[in-house]
Amino acid sequence: VSSASSALSERLGFIPPVCEVFKSPFIRLETENRYGFQIHPSARESLPDIIDNPVEGIVGADQPDPAAKPSDRRLNIGIVFSGGPAPGGHNVIAGVFDAMFAANENSRLFGFLLGPDGILENNYMEITREKVDAYRNLGGFTMIGTGRSKIDTPDKMALARQHCLDLNLDALVIVGGDDSNTNAAFMAQEFFNDGIQVIGVPKTIDGDIQVRDKNSELLCAMSFGFHTAARAFAHNVSGLCADCSSDVKYWHICKVMGRVASHLALEVGLQVHPNITLIGEEVADFIDEERIEKAREQGTVDYTAYGMTLRHVSRLICDGIVKRAAAGKNYGVIVMPEGLLEFINEIQVFIIKLNTIIADYNQTHDTDFHSDFPTLDDKLDHLRRMARMARENHIFTVWNTRDDDLFNVLPPFFQEGLLTERDSHGNFQFSQVETDKVIMGLVKDYLKTLAEQGVYKIGIERGWYARTMEKGGLDPKTYGRALFQNFDTDDAFLLVKKSAVSVKTLKQTLAREGVLDESKDIPKPIDKIYKASMPKFKTQNHFYGYDGRGNDPTWFDCTYTYNLGRTVFALIACGATGQMAAIKNLEKDFSDWTPLGIPIAPLMHLEERKGKLALVLEKSLVDIEAPAFRVFSAMREKWLAAEPGPDCYRRPGPIRYSGESEDSRPITLVLNELGRQ
Amino acid sequence: VSSASSALSERLGFIPPVCEVFKSPFIRLETENRYGFQIHPSARESLPDIIDNPVEGIVGADQPDPAAKPSDRRLNIGIVFSGGPAPGGHNVIAGVFDAMFAANENSRLFGFLLGPDGILENNYMEITREKVDAYRNLGGFTMIGTGRSKIDTPDKMALARQHCLDLNLDALVIVGGDDSNTNAAFMAQEFFNDGIQVIGVPKTIDGDIQVRDKNSELLCAMSFGFHTAARAFAHNVSGLCADCSSDVKYWHICKVMGRVASHLALEVGLQVHPNITLIGEEVADFIDEERIEKAREQGTVDYTAYGMTLRHVSRLICDGIVKRAAAGKNYGVIVMPEGLLEFINEIQVFIIKLNTIIADYNQTHDTDFHSDFPTLDDKLDHLRRMARMARENHIFTVWNTRDDDLFNVLPPFFQEGLLTERDSHGNFQFSQVETDKVIMGLVKDYLKTLAEQGVYKIGIERGWYARTMEKGGLDPKTYGRALFQNFDTDDAFLLVKKSAVSVKTLKQTLAREGVLDESKDIPKPIDKIYKASMPKFKTQNHFYGYDGRGNDPTWFDCTYTYNLGRTVFALIACGATGQMAAIKNLEKDFSDWTPLGIPIAPLMHLEERKGKLALVLEKSLVDIEAPAFRVFSAMREKWLAAEPGPDCYRRPGPIRYSGESEDSRPITLVLNELGRQ
Repeated sequence: VSSASSALSERLGFIPPVCEVFKSPFIRLETENRYGFQIHPSARESLPDIIDNPVEGIVGADQPDPAAKPSDRRLNIGIVFSGGPAPGGHNVIAGVFDAMFAANENSRLFGFLLGPDGILENNYMEITREKVDAYRNLGGFTMIGTGRSKIDTPDKMALARQHCLDLNLDALVIVGGDDSNTNAAFMAQEFFNDGIQVIGVPKTIDGDIQVRDKNSELLCAMSFGFHTAARAFAHNVSGLCADCSSDVKYWHICKVMGRVASHLALEVGLQVHPNITLIGEEVADFIDEERIEKAREQGTVDYTAYGMTLRHVSRLICDGIVKRAAAGKNYGVIVMPEGLLEFINEIQVFIIKLNTIIADYNQTHDTDFHSDFPTLDDKLDHLRRMARMARENHIFTVWNTRDDDLFNVLPPFFQEGLLTERDSHGNFQFSQVETDKVIMGLVKDYLKTLAEQGVYKIGIERGWYARTMEKGGLDPKTYGRALFQNFDTDDAFLLVKKSAVSVKTLKQTLAREGVLDESKDIPKPIDKIYKASMPKFKTQNHFYGYDGRGNDPTWFDCTYTYNLGRTVFALIACGATGQMAAIKNLEKDFSDWTPLGIPIAPLMHLEERKGKLALVLEKSLVDIEAPAFRVFSAMREKWLAAEPGPDCYRRPGPIRYSGESEDSRPITLVLNELGRQ
Repeated sequence: VSSASSALSERLGFIPPVCEVFKSPFIRLETENRYGFQIHPSARESLPDIIDNPVEGIVGADQPDPAAKPSDRRLNIGIVFSGGPAPGGHNVIAGVFDAMFAANENSRLFGFLLGPDGILENNYMEITREKVDAYRNLGGFTMIGTGRSKIDTPDKMALARQHCLDLNLDALVIVGGDDSNTNAAFMAQEFFNDGIQVIGVPKTIDGDIQVRDKNSELLCAMSFGFHTAARAFAHNVSGLCADCSSDVKYWHICKVMGRVASHLALEVGLQVHPNITLIGEEVADFIDEERIEKAREQGTVDYTAYGMTLRHVSRLICDGIVKRAAAGKNYGVIVMPEGLLEFINEIQVFIIKLNTIIADYNQTHDTDFHSDFPTLDDKLDHLRRMARMARENHIFTVWNTRDDDLFNVLPPFFQEGLLTERDSHGNFQFSQVETDKVIMGLVKDYLKTLAEQGVYKIGIERGWYARTMEKGGLDPKTYGRALFQNFDTDDAFLLVKKSAVSVKTLKQTLAREGVLDESKDIPKPIDKIYKASMPKFKTQNHFYGYDGRGNDPTWFDCTYTYNLGRTVFALIACGATGQMAAIKNLEKDFSDWTPLGIPIAPLMHLEERKGKLALVLEKSLVDIEAPAFRVFSAMREKWLAAEPGPDCYRRPGPIRYSGESEDSRPITLVLNELGRQ
């Protein structure tokens, strides 16, 4: 048994296809004037030398451009990974290396180690062919590592510049997310007069880097790594679908990575068709028309009508669970994004309100809230008093009865978290909250209520009911009408009457219908049927994240990143800076893929970060108006499969790098493209 | 985007190869007298009609056997899944169906639904070609479902018999684990005079069904489903290896299924080479020679010297973590079996001792232990008093100081669990304990101690040290000897002296060496180096189980199960009963695979189950004398990779069903076979 598996050798040997233009003997850039951006004045002020960069197309040429520096000149290039690993990173390096080496064998590629710290520490290694060959088409960023530090102060910027000058770099390549590409733009500006070019590469499994120009023309449909991570999660979730539909006793609760955007959850939903998939953007976008109408009638505005409450989300989940149970399916799969709670307006409101309450209290009483109310119960009492006073005295306070009601349905550990002291920015640490436990805690509580109300019941298969009764010598018809809500329908699954929620109430129900003397025992077959109708709600929790982001890349990501690397080199060789390497038409057939340089500076806008306004790239969230979400939304009822018959689970199969097929690109992209045609 | 992925269509179309004998026009059984078993008298008594069954070989023939019933006669066969799903189950059905249909188109196959309950409820469906074709090579038991009920009382046995007679069954096929195959033998006996044959099929991802005859000849090397589950876990763990070696900040803690045996953990270890893999059987097998020697000197026997303590296990893990940190690697991957705690002698001893203490207390005081000591602290106080009294009065009690010491290192939630009231059998519910949390809780505590002692430190790369010092205008040599333990060695990574564990002690250390005036601040470069040497221990916990057992089968499991199905049919057609279908030589090339019937009754022995002696199949544990474990053990140090340079992680790649390759069978089997050659 070899330590290198045959799967590994084959993968290392895969040669991704390259875009047509990269087969040309020479390349040059061609300004794509048809694309434009709305430029923010602050960006113009901060990034004067790169703000007017155009989108650059890459075209082939038979002759070198006599007006430009020779593209086959000797170059020194540095490359660095920034942030969490994403499948395909090694192929960006391979693409740069192969193009660079083909142009000039004396060019050199340096990898800064363990992220931007490598630049600050002058910690690097030279990337040789041997190194490149050892990591072709492999996942992770293992070759040179990654890190999360930022080059975000004048001192650090100066240090980075010095080390790039020391290494005599012609260009620096920054492979990272939105923040790292923002950083790349600032470095491009900073290094502009030194002639050191800086090129960004859009990486993040979260899929939240997508670039459009001001006319909504799609220039970069997706960051690299997204497809692989989504497919890896989908493959695991698919295994859970097979498991739960065999064993028919568990609801598998799958949290998938994605804090700021729910792209991964949506793609997993489209890949696997789980019974319930929650999308944060939809939760945030919800509008409670009833509340708005009511407020309008009263001549007021109800700002709490926007966005779903936690209770509402849990009710939706319960609704799906109850419906499936009625069709005899007390099992299923739920997918939710890691960042779901951050999309719930009410939670954000709680955080702001509680911060205000604690600060006000401390100021008014010149004391410490947490010392005065040491236990959770003390704190809850205090809040309840505030709400009562507000109601009784008809005064406006920051904490009203509705707040108190909503707050009291939260599980104690989450209440405790929300009431804990904050960091200096008053930021609540979402990362410490177990999203799935908060949501499923509410779901479990509510299901218990629904079971007590007789609403959550397992449907009884009609044939089994009849057989069980007949075997016990009882007439199915006589008892059927007494026992079930829907006996005289065509329903394949029978629902025990709501009033029967215990042996006692079952007896009363049968007695009321005149088929049982209340002093007698319940006949055995009926007892058996009743028991089979009473659900247990058993869950298994799963988190898919690190394993998927460490996966070896799909065909899509292998090919995308290799061509990104080629694009990076083209941009460098042709003298561009402050550009992000991109491939247009990713959503289409490979033959349509078009390498581009997208100027980063014009994409920037102002956003609050850590309490200050900063120039950053906007993160792309799931567009709930786009075709992918609309397809998902239209299929939701079908995929819940709350009816007799098989479930609609889809098996995407394991990740493959060979061959382009229907599975070779994210379904989200394919649907969005189909919808536009 | 089609709802059926192309991966699915291709998989459905895969036709597993069949063993040579199944290509013959006719088959017959041939008794294999060279294999024999040690028969237990109780088995002979309980299973008189099937106890003398021999191992049956299957041989091809050009003519039907005139002495036997025609093997192409019309047959009615029932099949049922029992227990958790395992990849390949659908191919057992496909194998039976294809063979049955080829022999006689009028034969019929019935699937009992949702496990043995389907037999008891007479709940079944006819398995048609359409159904079979929809599930070929797919994971899960979705076609007919599974369940956990047992046919273990005379009433249930009678009911099962009646329903098999009603369906006019010639044979019943039970696909399940050790208990289900035991059940199959009892049903074979029960149905013997009715002429209903019963055949078992060895299924369990845990890999704990392995059959040898009395001469240790291997008849069945592995149950089906094991390979796929192990490969699925391995693939996910492999992603974590890529992740942690890129991001270099997490230890990924992976718990994998396997309660009674650690085969899955061992196979994952061999597939992926994680830094640390724990094997329960090794933990249980450990002998503390020091304690034994000490006891021998004192003329006593120390029964506690057998098996590792929880503390010992956590120390071993810490040892690996500390060693890697010293080589600059404060990250890694740990794999442990779900059932690890059950292999720890001390935990078993605690359960027995605490049961005794609670029972004694209740009897002596005619009261309730839990009412008298309501909180955990009360209980711990009581135990401490017992231990102290025993020591002071030199009396033997059930709870001594060593018990108390060991008990007090357990995390409170686990102490609480151990002190909780038991079920009526006094059984402790291991399944409610989070193995990984117990172990890693101890590891974290001990690492904290090791950090305070200056033992757990991150090695500082020599070059980086020199650069950092020089940049700060300090002489690396002058300070190197003062700061590091190993400056004057060839070590690539430098270890800060043990005495420096805080800014204060760092200062004292440097002052003692005469390179710093204690009233001055620590120079910035040294402060930076010191900080880089102080480890944070960050973990991410993972549990791999349900997703892997729901995975689509590997080539090995596809082919194994399809041939198992064919074997089942051959045994039925040739009139066998009480046999388990098996394939000999699984560990060898496919051309050597040999279908067999193994008689179940002679394999049975007596074991305590739920407080009673019962005839059961013995579960196979990991053999720590066998080559696979020995290879693992020999490679352990290498795979820990606590030295400069890359880790030794292996990438097994995703699960494939096409083509036989080095990855096509469990590494455990291959190594055990190699070791025997």
